[in-house]
Amino acid sequence: MSIIAIDMDEVIADFISEQIIRFNKQFSKNISLLDLQGVKLQALYPSLADEIDEMINCDSFFRNLGVMPNSQSVIEKLTTKHEVYIASAAMDHSNSLDAKLSWLNKNFPFIKNSNIIFCGDKSIINADYLIDDHPHHFERFTGMGILFSAPHNMNFEYSRRVKSWFDVANLFMR
Amino acid sequence: MSIIAIDMDEVIADFISEQIIRFNKQFSKNISLLDLQGVKLQALYPSLADEIDEMINCDSFFRNLGVMPNSQSVIEKLTTKHEVYIASAAMDHSNSLDAKLSWLNKNFPFIKNSNIIFCGDKSIINADYLIDDHPHHFERFTGMGILFSAPHNMNFEYSRRVKSWFDVANLFMR
Repeated sequence: MSIIAIDMDEVIADFISEQIIRFNKQFSKNISLLDLQGVKLQALYPSLADEIDEMINCDSFFRNLGVMPNSQSVIEKLTTKHEVYIASAAMDHSNSLDAKLSWLNKNFPFIKNSNIIFCGDKSIINADYLIDDHPHHFERFTGMGILFSAPHNMNFEYSRRVKSWFDVANLFMR
Repeated sequence: MSIIAIDMDEVIADFISEQIIRFNKQFSKNISLLDLQGVKLQALYPSLADEIDEMINCDSFFRNLGVMPNSQSVIEKLTTKHEVYIASAAMDHSNSLDAKLSWLNKNFPFIKNSNIIFCGDKSIINADYLIDDHPHHFERFTGMGILFSAPHNMNFEYSRRVKSWFDVANLFMR
């Protein structure tokens, strides 16, 4: 039995698809997922960075995100063998906390509220593993970081990387 | 330098005064702080427990709480010597997360969002100390629990108890 903490955005919640849809609509652009390989949207359009942040930091953005493929079935299985927490750096988007909790309760009803953490600095989390798409969260984390592949981290070199929820199942459900 | 996690309700936020005011108004009662020594409001009025929970679980309740005496000045001093986190079991009141963050940003602007944690089970927090009015949070916590006196815990026997923010200052700022 391990304690496994799992990030939300781009790991279980399809953040980037909604971001592209809203960005293209609001700024009359036509970008796709391919344009965001190795780079964040704000870095691709630095002059629009503040407006992109504002576009994201709202209740409706997080309330309507899709679910990452196979995350529900794999995480439900993980909970039978491990203690699973969902850990989101939710304080980055201060108007979306209620929406994020509501999204979790709807899409991951088998995760109890006792096992949900909204935080800033994830080094405060006392877990054995942290599955996250942002490697900077691993720097001070006392457990083992596992990088979940996302477009923005494709060029980041990291030895412990998973590319899908099948990879996670293989790691923890053998 | 220690890592100190500090609870919100009844420790830095004056939860109970607002609860009494709203309860007396909504249910035409006339209770005071003295009636809640050693007991929670829901236990005093079990038939109204669900309605009391509903009364609390709203945005406006948490947005308007008072600040506990001397908590601001002492915590601001603590941050000069220690790493301070605010850790609230906020998932208990799922419609109040945005309001709680807004309250913290307004009343404790020297606490960065990176150092705020909303969670359920506080055993997940990797800190040296947890200052809390609910001793059940200490059971699986790996650091040292410090009980902050509140009316409901007055009869609970616990060796490490602080009665005010002056006591906390004495413990950590010598």
